[in-house]
Amino acid sequence: MLFKNITILDENFDIKENQFVAVKGDRISYIGPERPEVFFEQEFEGKGRLLMPAFYNAHAHTPMTLLRGYGGGLALNDWLTKKIFPFEAHLTANDVYYSMQQGIAEMLKFGIVSTTDMYMQGESILKAVLETGVKTNLGVGLVCFDPAKKLEDLSDYHNSKYLFENYHGRGDGRVLMDMSVHAEYTSFPGVVKDFVDYSKSIGTNMHVHLSETQKEHEECKQRHGKTPAQYFNDLGMFDCPTTAAHCVWLEEEDFDIFAEKGVTAATCPVSNLKLASGICDVKKLYEKGINVALATDGVSSNNNLNMIEEMKFFTLLQKVKHMDPTVITPKQAVEAATRGGAKAQGRIDCGVLKVGNKADLIVLDIDQPHLLPVHSLLDNIVYSADGSDVEMTICDGKLLYKNGEYYSLDIEKVIYETEKSRKRILSQL
Amino acid sequence: MLFKNITILDENFDIKENQFVAVKGDRISYIGPERPEVFFEQEFEGKGRLLMPAFYNAHAHTPMTLLRGYGGGLALNDWLTKKIFPFEAHLTANDVYYSMQQGIAEMLKFGIVSTTDMYMQGESILKAVLETGVKTNLGVGLVCFDPAKKLEDLSDYHNSKYLFENYHGRGDGRVLMDMSVHAEYTSFPGVVKDFVDYSKSIGTNMHVHLSETQKEHEECKQRHGKTPAQYFNDLGMFDCPTTAAHCVWLEEEDFDIFAEKGVTAATCPVSNLKLASGICDVKKLYEKGINVALATDGVSSNNNLNMIEEMKFFTLLQKVKHMDPTVITPKQAVEAATRGGAKAQGRIDCGVLKVGNKADLIVLDIDQPHLLPVHSLLDNIVYSADGSDVEMTICDGKLLYKNGEYYSLDIEKVIYETEKSRKRILSQL
Repeated sequence: MLFKNITILDENFDIKENQFVAVKGDRISYIGPERPEVFFEQEFEGKGRLLMPAFYNAHAHTPMTLLRGYGGGLALNDWLTKKIFPFEAHLTANDVYYSMQQGIAEMLKFGIVSTTDMYMQGESILKAVLETGVKTNLGVGLVCFDPAKKLEDLSDYHNSKYLFENYHGRGDGRVLMDMSVHAEYTSFPGVVKDFVDYSKSIGTNMHVHLSETQKEHEECKQRHGKTPAQYFNDLGMFDCPTTAAHCVWLEEEDFDIFAEKGVTAATCPVSNLKLASGICDVKKLYEKGINVALATDGVSSNNNLNMIEEMKFFTLLQKVKHMDPTVITPKQAVEAATRGGAKAQGRIDCGVLKVGNKADLIVLDIDQPHLLPVHSLLDNIVYSADGSDVEMTICDGKLLYKNGEYYSLDIEKVIYETEKSRKRILSQL
Repeated sequence: MLFKNITILDENFDIKENQFVAVKGDRISYIGPERPEVFFEQEFEGKGRLLMPAFYNAHAHTPMTLLRGYGGGLALNDWLTKKIFPFEAHLTANDVYYSMQQGIAEMLKFGIVSTTDMYMQGESILKAVLETGVKTNLGVGLVCFDPAKKLEDLSDYHNSKYLFENYHGRGDGRVLMDMSVHAEYTSFPGVVKDFVDYSKSIGTNMHVHLSETQKEHEECKQRHGKTPAQYFNDLGMFDCPTTAAHCVWLEEEDFDIFAEKGVTAATCPVSNLKLASGICDVKKLYEKGINVALATDGVSSNNNLNMIEEMKFFTLLQKVKHMDPTVITPKQAVEAATRGGAKAQGRIDCGVLKVGNKADLIVLDIDQPHLLPVHSLLDNIVYSADGSDVEMTICDGKLLYKNGEYYSLDIEKVIYETEKSRKRILSQL
């Protein structure tokens, strides 16, 4: 596959014009100003196009596609307990399989090739991921409401173990299992400690919701005399590479722990607005040298998987939070949406256009009235572009999406099946 | 023109499915569940489509298309004085004519048919508006930096007067001239008072920047012992129907003045984030019964004219400002982007789907993976949709845009000419 005369975001996230980029198998094999002297099966003319790394969604619940817009406008607790949980209680493996596929269709439309996910019915999720050619770091989201229970008593643990043993590394490494703890307030220290030890023993990443709401943060301090970050750190979690989602209410010491332990902060700006959780201090994350990764969260609190939109919220919210228009550059936004997420997922050969890296690529149509003129292409991508400007999405060298066409899933069938699931569940409520 | 079997947003902004909507001349002639027994030249199948009122942009500087992304990331004062003003000093009538056309192309792509604009080279703007079939309430933006000057000495006044006398009401009322004062800090009470009296004498609307930044707001209080709202009210401005743009720093008494005088607050959520101005208290505007209209501001501080994106920022920012996820509904957002703006422009027969109203319509493609399933279509439009989901834009019954095609402007020529302007001006700086 060869892209000709195309503008690219290079490995430093700088713009280079009139480049040739070649893909061989699942990797980028050439980047340069001249055409390589090899025969290519597929050639794409790059005039008016930008080739850049595909997006990595650092925290999501992708099968929640099925709940898009369900219970909107409610207060958080009512939304969860009166709407989301009762609906989810009816989800079958089949429901999740098709909802995940529809979520993947949306990921591809908006240029996402990989998602750090946390959800139930993992086998259905992984089947959808393997079949459609995308990537995931999946976690089950360990939950425990009975202090008497041990790790061995928890189905989430056995499920995580089963999925790890049967799926970790499959699809040429596209599927990775993370060990995931839902949150501090939905578990107890004993089981978390044992789960962390299990994660260490098998060498996986961890994934957790952390300081999303003020309530969660303050109640943790009341219960344990420490913040969620300090609590999980004391349980050893951060000795594993960890993605901490949200991080809205981090305190000074928490930032230092993240920096010292190399924890990734997966920030979900839209979701944090929608549920009125607050605004994460991304400026401080950068100042402390913490890896920042951008995420949509589930579509029931967003309500889409539009990473271009998410980049705009990401940068603009920091400007008003700090009352300083110079805070957070478009380049930082693009990095957080690509390399930041890839790094969090432990995919060190992804997220950057570089020879030898995995060919996870998107092509944007930048030859449109709302993206012209170009004083600064990075500004245009982050502040002016529309999610739908993504024209092509490629994962591990395979073209999965182009101009509304899906090459690895049957979109009509998927939409038909999710609608069937939705109607059935609503009739059961 | 007939839309068949289409979902609509009715005059109460509620969803109605399987409707027939007919357009005769420039007006909506029929809305109902059955096909009217008349012959139609054009018929559109409405399956998987939403027909709704087109957007009204309540505050913009549309020709600033040419400055998209120019000087991004600078602090406000540097941005204005070192980048924007020097660039604008080189603008010719021809530059503005084509920049306005490109701005109109972007308006149409994102479903906007009318803009409350404030900019220089008014005749070029109006030529572009009249030729392309859109609408504007244009103001010159009166500025005066010499306290010795009288209204009669100001070219902005004579220009406003000339444009009013020669253009007001043209294009079957598509063009309206507003008398516009740039802001409190760029004028003096004497000339403002006389300009307001002139506006009253000819019965036009007024348009002004008001309490956009804290600096502007506080310095006004120091200068005049009152807020900008109180200052302009005392000068009689609000006896004319007025659009006040931004309104970020309004105080209690200001809200009451707006309510009493029927001032429209044109809120620009994205621009106010981008320039770190703050977050307008929209919740309070609604509580006081003030007309709220949504606006993009110029693309150099946004950086697009994407009203769907703007609706999302509009609602979500209020949730976090008030730390309450129930604040501001999707319906309020859609109203602010349509009827709110039309009302502000004095176009009482626009902004709502109603028989007899002007046919200012957009069609959205709602049959896409990121807009399904539909638990709540209004939630999907405001929180999930993408600007590019606008498939068709119709103004005064004329189809001006459909799926990337423009019917009233030559997009290639427009882009070529704006790029030529951009290069020339940069070479002059």
